Amino acid sequence: MPTPATRDRLVAAAQELFAAQGVGATSPRQVLAASGVGQGSLYHHFPAKHDLAVAAVSATADQALAAALQELSGDSPALGRVLAYLERPRDALAGCRVGRLTSDQAVMDDDDLRATVRTFFDRLVATVAEVLTEAGVPPDDATDRAHAAVAVVQGGYVLARATGDPQAMRAAVRGFVTLLDPTTRDRPDDEESL
Amino acid sequence: MPTPATRDRLVAAAQELFAAQGVGATSPRQVLAASGVGQGSLYHHFPAKHDLAVAAVSATADQALAAALQELSGDSPALGRVLAYLERPRDALAGCRVGRLTSDQAVMDDDDLRATVRTFFDRLVATVAEVLTEAGVPPDDATDRAHAAVAVVQGGYVLARATGDPQAMRAAVRGFVTLLDPTTRDRPDDEESL
Repeated sequence: MPTPATRDRLVAAAQELFAAQGVGATSPRQVLAASGVGQGSLYHHFPAKHDLAVAAVSATADQALAAALQELSGDSPALGRVLAYLERPRDALAGCRVGRLTSDQAVMDDDDLRATVRTFFDRLVATVAEVLTEAGVPPDDATDRAHAAVAVVQGGYVLARATGDPQAMRAAVRGFVTLLDPTTRDRPDDEESL
Repeated sequence: MPTPATRDRLVAAAQELFAAQGVGATSPRQVLAASGVGQGSLYHHFPAKHDLAVAAVSATADQALAAALQELSGDSPALGRVLAYLERPRDALAGCRVGRLTSDQAVMDDDDLRATVRTFFDRLVATVAEVLTEAGVPPDDATDRAHAAVAVVQGGYVLARATGDPQAMRAAVRGFVTLLDPTTRDRPDDEESL
C-alpha cells in the first residue's frame, strides 16, 4: 500500500533528477527507477507527470526559501544576517536549484511551476529588503539592494558554471559585500566563511 | 554553389534557434528550414552538428563581447563606461544569450562550446576590472567588483525571467550602481537610461 514515505521518496528522487538534468528531460519512468518504489505507487500519488513536477519543484523551492529565511531571521544585527545569506557556502558549480529552472523551458511553459519559481524569488527579495530596512537602509534603496543581493548570488552561480571556477562566485559576492558593508574589507581572510 | 552569405545565413539561423530553444533541442534540420538554404550547403559548410554549434555559439559570444567592449572603451570617464555597460537596455525576459548556455547541458558537455562561454566571461570580467582600476579602484577590489557587476547583470536576467518582470533586473542593476557610484543616487529619473 502507498504510504507517506513512498510519496516522499518519489518527490526526493524527482528533485535530484530535476537538479541533475532538468524538469523537461526527466521522465516519470526515471523517477520510478531512482526512487525504488513500485509503479502503482507512482500513479497513485501522481497520476500525471505535472503533479509530480509541481510537488518536486515546490519542495525544492520550499527548502531553498527555508534555508534563506533561517539566515535572514533571528536576533543578530540585521546587516550581518544579510551577509550570512550572501556568504553561505554554496555548491557554485552545480548552480541554484531554483534559479536554473528559469532556463528550463518545461518549467517556464507551465503556469504552476512558473508561479512556484516566482513566489520563491518574490519572497526572498522581499525578506532581504525587510532586513536591510531593519539595518537602517531607506526602503527604496533597500528594495533595490535586495534585488542586487539576490542577483549577485544567482549571477555568481552563472559565472562559476561558465568559468568552471567556484572562486568566480566568491569574488562576485565579495565585491558586492564590500560595497554593501565597507567594514567587511577589514575582516581577516579566515573570517570569510565562503 | 555555397557562398559566404549562405554560411552566414546558416549561422544566423542557428543563433536564433539556440536562443529560443537551446542548443541541445535544436536539430540541423530545423536550422536548415529556418535558414532557407539548400541541404547540400548545410553539409558543405558544417559536416557535423558540432561544427555548426561551435560557429553559432562563437558568433553569439563574439557579438555580445563586442557590444560590451564598445561600452567599456573610449575616452569618457572610466566609471561612467562601467555604468554604461551595467545600465544598457536589455531584453531582460529573454535572458542572456551567453549566460543561458551555462544551463544548456549540450553546451556544458562539449569542451569547445564550454571554452567559448568561459572565454566570453573571462574577457568581460577582466575588461570591467581594468576599467574600474582606471577609475581608481584598487586592483583586488576592482577584480571583485567586476565579478559582482557581471553577476548582477546575469542574476538580473534570472530574476526578471523568474518573476516575469523586467523591472526586477533594473532594480538589481540600480541597487548595485548606487553602491558602486553613490553620486548616481542624485540623478533625475529620466537620466536612468534603463
